Amino acid sequence: MQRIDSPQNARFKRWKRLCQEARFQKKEGAALLEGAHLAESYFATRRAVSALLYSRHANAEARYWIDAYARRNVPLFELSRSLWHQLEPVENGIGLMLEIPTKAGDTTRLLQKAATSDVLYLDGVQDAGNVGTMIRTAVAAGVRFVVTSPKTAGLYTPKVLRAGMGAHFGATCIENVTIDTFAQIYQGTIVAADARGGKDLFARSDAYAKGPLCWIMGAEGPGVSEQALSYTQQRYYIPIDRHCESLNVGAAAAICLFDMRRRRHV
Amino acid sequence: MQRIDSPQNARFKRWKRLCQEARFQKKEGAALLEGAHLAESYFATRRAVSALLYSRHANAEARYWIDAYARRNVPLFELSRSLWHQLEPVENGIGLMLEIPTKAGDTTRLLQKAATSDVLYLDGVQDAGNVGTMIRTAVAAGVRFVVTSPKTAGLYTPKVLRAGMGAHFGATCIENVTIDTFAQIYQGTIVAADARGGKDLFARSDAYAKGPLCWIMGAEGPGVSEQALSYTQQRYYIPIDRHCESLNVGAAAAICLFDMRRRRHV
Repeated sequence: MQRIDSPQNARFKRWKRLCQEARFQKKEGAALLEGAHLAESYFATRRAVSALLYSRHANAEARYWIDAYARRNVPLFELSRSLWHQLEPVENGIGLMLEIPTKAGDTTRLLQKAATSDVLYLDGVQDAGNVGTMIRTAVAAGVRFVVTSPKTAGLYTPKVLRAGMGAHFGATCIENVTIDTFAQIYQGTIVAADARGGKDLFARSDAYAKGPLCWIMGAEGPGVSEQALSYTQQRYYIPIDRHCESLNVGAAAAICLFDMRRRRHV
Repeated sequence: MQRIDSPQNARFKRWKRLCQEARFQKKEGAALLEGAHLAESYFATRRAVSALLYSRHANAEARYWIDAYARRNVPLFELSRSLWHQLEPVENGIGLMLEIPTKAGDTTRLLQKAATSDVLYLDGVQDAGNVGTMIRTAVAAGVRFVVTSPKTAGLYTPKVLRAGMGAHFGATCIENVTIDTFAQIYQGTIVAADARGGKDLFARSDAYAKGPLCWIMGAEGPGVSEQALSYTQQRYYIPIDRHCESLNVGAAAAICLFDMRRRRHV
């Protein structure tokens, strides 16, 4: 275990940037996971951990996970309370973070796997809570690949991770993939949720039965981009009541992905 | 129009409490709506406005709505920039808020209307974003009554209002109603989403066809309370993939409410 007390420590400075800069995270291919729930979810996956950071005042729950990860020979770093407060994304955390690598491998190779699987493609979704919720919803619906456009929020910020509730580690997440690149590689059917038109989601459809399906969800407000729509074989709208303008994109994704699940499993 | 520059102004002090204290909001039966989108949604409803507050530095978009509400004889209050900054719930707002009454009438009378309608009942849901999203989802699904337990987050905080995107005004929202009170009055079928068991949501079911339906959604983590479950005629689980622990409650509500909509409308 290494103690860190100086704000000039190079590791500390790097972690601080990882906490604050989504771009730096993407560039480094690393992220910090905070708290007991993510520590537990991640532990179960047996994926690699680069470092375990904890506060000198970490509580008993944190101590449990520090011991568990120490037994897997994860490098430990104990930070002073004042340094810790500069990192911590939540106010009353337990005093524990993991640094993890966020790139599960070479993008081209990962995309080849995605090409023959069900995929959720996020086209410019900005809201961190929605992005995290959609990763969670995708995994719950049995969709194990999440691919995101360059304009979509970073998947490993504290807010997205919290909303994902560990689902990041049940999926293969591939960031920074343009729809052009993705559509060239993808071998299944590409469909989009589009409030502006298309086919009624609940009407009879056979698109679902034809092997791998990629659902594209767009940003709230603008929706799916014209560029992305140009690659879709079918657009679907959710038949909402006339008293409401639109659905939250996370709610829309839940309805679409579980409608697919229902049709396949019932 | 009245100018307000003093932090000692009684109206200002009251608005400040309305911004900050969910309990005070409930007690006063009043709330503040911020921004152009809510101003526009609310305008369309023709519901009552108690006051329009704006910053001395309100932008052109705000000016448009100030003029529109002024033509309806809504009392206007212009606040200095420093007072405004103490109220504003968002960082780069347009400088506009409406004070509105949140009680659409006597609770008993409102509950009598709810008793023969479709209802979403929120049983202790704490997360503001989820609560707002669920109101929006309910209205989109054609469910026009939202009833909440005393432990559920206040419906008129800035975060809930933002997540609701105006849907609050497409619904009748009734706060602070215990499940005991509600269940005694309700004349339809009460069902709950419960990850712990019950019937597969996607299995054949006739509960949906039997007139008014009330869906109970519980807090993330604990789920629907035992007390609320005791009143349900049926519990439903959403058949999620084994790689995911659970769904976000907003996503679960979207799946349940739109499954009801699908069964009724297809």
